Amino acid sequence: MRQVDVELGARSYPILIGEGLLSRAGCLAPYVAGERVLIVSNDRVAPLYLEQALTAFAGKATASLVLPDGESHKNLDTLSRIFDALIQGRYDRGTTLAALGGGVIGDLTGFAAAAYQRGIDFVQLPTTLLAQVDSSVGGKTGVNHPGGKNLIGAFHQPRCVLADTRTLATLPERELRAGLAEVIKYGLIADGDFFAWLETNMPALRSRSPEVLEAAIERCCQLKASIVAADEREQGMRALLNFGHTFGHAIEAAQHYRGWLHGEAVGAGMAMAARLSLRMGRLAEVDYRRILGMLAAAGLPQGAPVEVAAAELRQRMASDKKVERGQVRLVLLNRIGDAEVTLDYPQGKLDEVLRVDRVATLPA
Amino acid sequence: MRQVDVELGARSYPILIGEGLLSRAGCLAPYVAGERVLIVSNDRVAPLYLEQALTAFAGKATASLVLPDGESHKNLDTLSRIFDALIQGRYDRGTTLAALGGGVIGDLTGFAAAAYQRGIDFVQLPTTLLAQVDSSVGGKTGVNHPGGKNLIGAFHQPRCVLADTRTLATLPERELRAGLAEVIKYGLIADGDFFAWLETNMPALRSRSPEVLEAAIERCCQLKASIVAADEREQGMRALLNFGHTFGHAIEAAQHYRGWLHGEAVGAGMAMAARLSLRMGRLAEVDYRRILGMLAAAGLPQGAPVEVAAAELRQRMASDKKVERGQVRLVLLNRIGDAEVTLDYPQGKLDEVLRVDRVATLPA
Repeated sequence: MRQVDVELGARSYPILIGEGLLSRAGCLAPYVAGERVLIVSNDRVAPLYLEQALTAFAGKATASLVLPDGESHKNLDTLSRIFDALIQGRYDRGTTLAALGGGVIGDLTGFAAAAYQRGIDFVQLPTTLLAQVDSSVGGKTGVNHPGGKNLIGAFHQPRCVLADTRTLATLPERELRAGLAEVIKYGLIADGDFFAWLETNMPALRSRSPEVLEAAIERCCQLKASIVAADEREQGMRALLNFGHTFGHAIEAAQHYRGWLHGEAVGAGMAMAARLSLRMGRLAEVDYRRILGMLAAAGLPQGAPVEVAAAELRQRMASDKKVERGQVRLVLLNRIGDAEVTLDYPQGKLDEVLRVDRVATLPA
Repeated sequence: MRQVDVELGARSYPILIGEGLLSRAGCLAPYVAGERVLIVSNDRVAPLYLEQALTAFAGKATASLVLPDGESHKNLDTLSRIFDALIQGRYDRGTTLAALGGGVIGDLTGFAAAAYQRGIDFVQLPTTLLAQVDSSVGGKTGVNHPGGKNLIGAFHQPRCVLADTRTLATLPERELRAGLAEVIKYGLIADGDFFAWLETNMPALRSRSPEVLEAAIERCCQLKASIVAADEREQGMRALLNFGHTFGHAIEAAQHYRGWLHGEAVGAGMAMAARLSLRMGRLAEVDYRRILGMLAAAGLPQGAPVEVAAAELRQRMASDKKVERGQVRLVLLNRIGDAEVTLDYPQGKLDEVLRVDRVATLPA
């Protein structure tokens, strides 16, 4: 087992990474302050892993709530269902919520924990690569609004993140690729050596080598933990983690959260951000080519879907959370491993990027 | 103008109290970090004070959203309407929300500010006595659930509270009395001298003497500010502020938030808590008589409504936020000015209190 600690004073917590962790009876009990646990999962993950999760909480009074799967359910209505279950079950302030699933379940459950009785404990049990390397760590929680992604939410840190890498064995191929988008992101924004390591190890990641996956997850969690520890509430450098996301969120919203997966949209968004960086003369052509090559190796799209108009993307980006006085803040690249948050880019070049290099279909 | 400061480090803010403050053009502009302000009000307060509030924000880009009035609208659906307005109007993270109204508007707007884009600024412009002395100060925000009061919410401090005592001139008589319940509460839990002052000044408060009202509001805000500064997130002594509220919330929920006003229910709840304290031998008979006399002088009920069964009250109390391992924490009195949070009371005596001394009708 590998452990990465997120250092946030009284709100510090461990990320436990390893194969078969969920099957260790009672291993999560030390992270539960009270007696009752409500596990929130979805109808795809629960049949596979709910029983193991119940075992991991052995010694506590544990129950579960199973929600429909998918980004289109990450909204206030589904959030309400968690509150209803908590209230009907008379769960008190000492309750711990557990999120068993991917990023949608983690974000929903975390926000429910933030708001129920003005804040109760929760733990993250991510079962997708994307959730294990990114969304389960750092305390960002929330739901979507038809007008935009994650527009309603809270910062609320979990008590523990347990990433059982064995759950990745059942992950659909498309979800694996989507998770790789966030893995690549860490290399691009913060660690050129890790990016080079990924260039070598992408085939092993695609074929789900347990050792290589575990090493990649650990490195991503280390990078995220250090960024979150330095800037918990995104006043500064944490915004780097949004690399590719402003473009990606616009794609997701334009598709009403029923099209590309979040990671796929982020892959496209990273290509678009890299393209803008290239066109501005910030990023060298050689780095740009390496980035496109990496996205291709990961099976990710390298541009927005052809059916979404540039004008719609531009409009969606304008209602992003990162908008400041009418202009959207973007993360752009100086080189692989070095990114920067900026309002300083020519709108004309952004418009060019929104118009060109569309991807006709979902990656095979 | 009187000023009370809530000392919370970087989140400190002033409470400004005085007659006609809302009419001072631009007086709120210093508390708005960005350019845009969305004032949230209700259909009873907006026709009276919205124009003044717009003036108070002179210099900023200000718009308004008017919601239906009443505790029954303090729910997730109404909250959604605030999010819709923010998103449709493309309000960004630099936006300030302003709550113009009573406790319902303050709690709803504060929670919307806590959750929109994971947290934006807000200011409180309380127009009821209850909101001016209690709910607008301290950062508790939230909405009700059919299963209980304030079960969903957040701690989110305002940037400023502006209590224009002139707004109390138009307050319905019943709302004035409801506000007096919270005023009396401060004397009971924290300041015996203030309680004695209230015994002398209750007629002047009932007849809305501006000077006496202003003095009472200032004292309540001082007491609340010091309690909140010592215990922002209710880990300890802040729970004293819930005196009478666990009984009161049960009454409100049993009436589906369409019966007594919050302050009326709290008045009844304080009588019930005092009665339990008396029956346990904690509270002297003479103090108990003074408390009932004070509630009568304020025109408040001294017991639960006759139409709500004791069994229902008991059940509603069991789903309160203050439940700990199946037992509800209560605030009980040792004497006037000295209260205590405790799990240590005989259930039989609580049941007696829930059964006896009902009030047949609303106070005239």
